[in-house]
Formats: sequence, C-alpha cells, structure tokens
Amino acid sequence: MKVVCSKENLVRGLNTVKSAVPVRTTLDILRCVLLEAEENQLVVTANDTTLGIETKFEALVMEQGAIAADANLFLSIIQKLPDTDIVIETGYNYEISIRAENAKFVISGMDPNQFISLPSIQFSGEAEVSQFTVREMIRKVIFSIADSNLNAAMSGVYLEVINDKMRMTTLDGHRISIRVSALKGEFGLNHAIIPGKTLNDLSKIITGDHEKMMKILFSQNHMKFIYDETTMVSRVIDGEYFKIESMLREECETHVKVNKRMFYDCLDRSTLLINESDKKPIILDIREEEMNLRLRSQIGSLDETIAIEKEGNNLKIAFNPKLLLDALRVIDDEEVDVYLVKYNYPCTIKDSEGTYKYVILPVNFTEE
Amino acid sequence: MKVVCSKENLVRGLNTVKSAVPVRTTLDILRCVLLEAEENQLVVTANDTTLGIETKFEALVMEQGAIAADANLFLSIIQKLPDTDIVIETGYNYEISIRAENAKFVISGMDPNQFISLPSIQFSGEAEVSQFTVREMIRKVIFSIADSNLNAAMSGVYLEVINDKMRMTTLDGHRISIRVSALKGEFGLNHAIIPGKTLNDLSKIITGDHEKMMKILFSQNHMKFIYDETTMVSRVIDGEYFKIESMLREECETHVKVNKRMFYDCLDRSTLLINESDKKPIILDIREEEMNLRLRSQIGSLDETIAIEKEGNNLKIAFNPKLLLDALRVIDDEEVDVYLVKYNYPCTIKDSEGTYKYVILPVNFTEE
Repeated sequence: MKVVCSKENLVRGLNTVKSAVPVRTTLDILRCVLLEAEENQLVVTANDTTLGIETKFEALVMEQGAIAADANLFLSIIQKLPDTDIVIETGYNYEISIRAENAKFVISGMDPNQFISLPSIQFSGEAEVSQFTVREMIRKVIFSIADSNLNAAMSGVYLEVINDKMRMTTLDGHRISIRVSALKGEFGLNHAIIPGKTLNDLSKIITGDHEKMMKILFSQNHMKFIYDETTMVSRVIDGEYFKIESMLREECETHVKVNKRMFYDCLDRSTLLINESDKKPIILDIREEEMNLRLRSQIGSLDETIAIEKEGNNLKIAFNPKLLLDALRVIDDEEVDVYLVKYNYPCTIKDSEGTYKYVILPVNFTEE
Repeated sequence: MKVVCSKENLVRGLNTVKSAVPVRTTLDILRCVLLEAEENQLVVTANDTTLGIETKFEALVMEQGAIAADANLFLSIIQKLPDTDIVIETGYNYEISIRAENAKFVISGMDPNQFISLPSIQFSGEAEVSQFTVREMIRKVIFSIADSNLNAAMSGVYLEVINDKMRMTTLDGHRISIRVSALKGEFGLNHAIIPGKTLNDLSKIITGDHEKMMKILFSQNHMKFIYDETTMVSRVIDGEYFKIESMLREECETHVKVNKRMFYDCLDRSTLLINESDKKPIILDIREEEMNLRLRSQIGSLDETIAIEKEGNNLKIAFNPKLLLDALRVIDDEEVDVYLVKYNYPCTIKDSEGTYKYVILPVNFTEE
C-alpha cells in the first residue's frame, strides 16, 4: 500500500473513528485502525465489536492495499507532523513508514486480515433526521441513563420512530427523560434500545449542522447511522424497554411556573452544602406567588425565596437538587412549568408542545 | 462584624490569597481565610505558615470585626451568588451569614484569634521590578527545579539582585536554567533561595502588567513581595546555593544556529516514541549545514534532517528530548544558538545579550 493524503483529512478521519477503539483490551487488533487504500480514497475503520465506525476521504493511491495500525500511536504521529501532505507506505512484515517533509517515522503495523470487519446486516426500517436534531436530543436525555450494569436496558437510550416523529427516552430509577422531535416524512414504526456509549460517541462526531441529514437504519440486533462519508454500526441492547406510559401521570394538583435561571441558580447554590456522607435534599415550599427553597446540612444552610406563578394547592416537597439541575440544564425555555401532585409523588417538568418531559421522584424529608 | 462588598472584589480577593491555603492539613484553622473588616475596607488573609498572602479592597463596614472562614467553602459560596453586593455578618458562636438578593447562606466560622498572623519582619534589602518581568522570569526557569525533597536547594529558585540586574537560577541535576533582567535603578546585592511553590503561586496571581511595578524585600529567613493591594510573605530555603559559575563552560568546539520552531517540532515528534520503560535518547548528528535527528525505540523510529548554520567540528551527541524541549519552549527567539564541546559535555543554549542560558547534560548512546 502506498498513499498520499492531506494531514487535515487524515486527522479528521482518525478522530471520527477513534471512539470505536476500546480504551482497554487484551486483543491487539482491536487497538488498531484499518487503513484501506482503494481507488482515489482512503477508508479508515475502527471496531470494538459493539461499535464500529468507518469513514473515507480523498487520497492519491499509488498502490492499493491495506494495513492495520495502532490507532492512538498512529493518530499522535499524524497530529505532530507538519501541516502538509503525508505519505503512508507499507513495507516488509507490516512495517509502516509515514513521511511528511523531512520527517520519517517507521512503526510496526498488523496484518489487515486479522481486523474484524463491520458486520453486514439486512436492515428492516429506516428514518431520516437532521444531524443537529439527533445531537441535541441525545444531549438532552443521555444524563439520566444508569451507570451500572445492573439493568442493561437502563444503560441505553430507547429510540422510537413513530411515523413522522422521533422519540428518545432514558430512565435510571429516579427519573425519566423524554424528548420528541418531528421528522420530515413518514417512516413507520421502529424502536431499539441503543447503548448510551454509542449515542454519546455519535453526538461527539456528527457536525451538528441544521441542514445536514443523517440516516438511521434499524435491524433486529444492530443500528446503523449514516451521515456524510461516515457509517456507524452499533449493537442494540436486547429485550423489551420499560412500559413508561404507566409511569407518566397526567394528574396535577399544583402547577408552578417559574423563571428557569432563578430556579437553576438557587438549586445550583444548594449543592455546595451536600457532601457524600450527608446527602440532604432541598425542600421546595410552594406558596401563593412564591417558592421558598431551603437546605440544611452539616456544612451549613441555604434559604432563598423566588417568585412563581402558582395554580392549585400549596405544597412542601423535597428533591435531590442534582436531579432537578440535570433536567433544567437541558431546557432552553426561559420559564418552565412544573406539575406536582403530592409530597410523595413525582414531579413533571414539561412544555405544552410535548417536545420534552422530565419526571423526577421526590425524596423523604424531615424539618427540624 | 458586618460588612457589605461587591462580589467581584471579594472573589478576586479570595482567589488572590487561596494559594496560601494548604490542600491537605490536619489543622482546621489553616484551611481558613481571615476576614477583617476595618474602616472602609475588608482585609483577606491566608497563611499556610510557609507562605502567607494578604490583600484588601473597599467595603462598606457597618460593624468592625474579624472572622475566620473555611476558604474553599466560602469562595464556592461567593462564586455561586448573584453578581451583586454581598452582606457578610457574624453571629453567635462564630456563625457567618452571607446574603445576596434573596439568598441567604449560613455556615460555621472559626475564632479569628486562632488564625496565625503573617510574621512581622525587619527587611534588610529591597528591589523594584515590573510584575511582567517577574512573571516571565519565573515561567522561564521554574520547570527545571527538582521535584524531590532530596535536596532542598534544588527545589527552589535562586533569586539574586546584583545592583541593576535581577537573576533567577534553577537546576535539577540534569540542567541549569538562568534568566537575567535589567532593573530600573541600583539595588545593591541580595540573594535568596525561594521555594518553587511560592514563585509559582506568585506568577499566577500577579497581573503581569508591563507598567505595574512590585517590590521585593529580603531578610534572613523571609521574602516579601508587595504589589497593588497585595502582600505575600514566604519563608526562604536555608543554606547556600550551588556554585554554578564553575559549571558554566565558556569553551565551544561546535556552534550551531538553528530555526527554533523546526528544532522544537522535531524533538516534540520524537517524544511519541518514548515510554516509561524505554527512555531512548534522540541523537543529534551535526554535519555541515544540516543536523540529522534520529530516535529508535521499541515503539518505532523517527529520522529527520533540518538545515543549520554550523561553525567548528562535526559532532554526534544525544539528549533526553524533553530537556531540550523545556528550554526551547520558553525561548522567544526565532533562531537559537547552541554551543557544544564534545559528546559527553553539556550543551548550552544562550543568547548574545546574556538574558538567558540553558545548560543541558547529554546522555550516553549507542547506535545499532
């Protein structure tokens, strides 16, 4: 293999696929990217067997061929080379020489035939959506997946295509986060539980352009995301997702409208008084036209009152402030609507257009 | 104590003194800042007993007094409050209430009489120098102090005032770094070994303005730095500094003039091939009009040739590339002059004006 390409393209390509290179693995080939020089292009692929990413760009191919190279070392070398054309050439025993101007690196590569190719799958359904929408939706639900592997479904994002809508849902036992977006077209019904890491990685590499579209393909065990010159294939999480409809109450006995920034800032301040050994909740004391928020811990106390609009009953209810903060952080509205029932019922923060819904469980509290 | 001040001033004051708050200590009072409300000003002090910093700013003092407050907690609270005036008031049993708009924090303080005041010292000599000069000099020598406590003097910066010049020297057993700056005035002869941490902290908090001056005061056991409204008092390291003059050779058998950027970039690339278990040196092969640099390790090899101007003998010599990089990184010149003698003699990078001198020991090498 002998190929000439620009440093810029190669760096972008390697950065695109690198999230499919496992951080830790005992299998050397998984640490590699596959470089394939085909006519007029270089194809770069990484695959950790759960997630695989392939991208390609223009290159001057002087000799077709392929080689596997340690992804991190190869990327570090390319990044430190001068901003110019780079010549990559393979030699005896999978040796790779990398040249730019007067600098020449030589490193060991691996047999490209050992590389585990991306699976070829029959896809049964698809949808088209803007890259921007996908990235925003991911960002706005991904924080409430469960860390643990106690429950596989909780560590994923439930993605549904419902005709002309796309919905993403996550939950972690303390809260549910839902985002809905309109699609340009009718795409039938499809759903899958996608590993949180896959969507996190996807949101980092897509450009996020409003205009640019991407394709999402569904099959029994895999999802495929195609955008620009890049293809991402991910396993899905087996099994059924939770029946969340039954958890979403429509009842409301207290409706609060509050300035998001003021609510957020107060909750944010209160987190200073929380430490690992003393996780005190913040008490929301909802009265006519004002809400008093207070938190008292070993560290100290905070007491603050903010203006609200209220309909329905007065209510005292307590939350882990971090859960409220996570939801408010991804809501772009200036004012938010909070719907409550009783002190031991979850609260719901949602908009009237149905684009978001954040359900958060309260915690017990005692007042001294 | 009851005092009103702007959030901005208070945050700046606390950030100024916080490097004198120890990261780890068993003594609670050392974790505190002392707040003293005197007529029309608030004085903020921190002191870890090696380094003490005091600063002050305008405030509306409604009741004079003092209190000690946990530095990190107090600063976090102030930072999260609205950008407005802040009211600080002490209550029963060293309780501190902190109010801004509708938010009120209450935390526990400590008896201000427990706070260890800055030492009052008779200073025997002083110099005046621009803040910018001090910050730049520190940055350009601080990297070659020794980490270890094996040798106290090596962990400090040797600061000398020599009439109308100031000189800073550091060394770590592998290299010596020297910077010299002109002073505006004659300040006699004075010198001290200052803990590296003190100067690191100082360089972070001074504004670095070309126009703004600072005073440096010498005594037997302490240094004092005074600038704007801030005073920093540091212990000095006991003992004599190394007799470095004998280590600075004036002989030269090979003089190389090289483009700094090209030299730096090549050395920087070579570090990719070094790991903890395989610290191979970079070999500089100095010939007529060109220098070949090569490094071969388990990871791979780099071979690069760059143009130079050379006087004197050809020479092959090897270095730890990181030591050369550290020196080149803080040299602003486009071209650097490297003076060499033999393969086992240190090299010197210096300018003709005598503002800097970096002496670096070579390492042994074998060529396969």
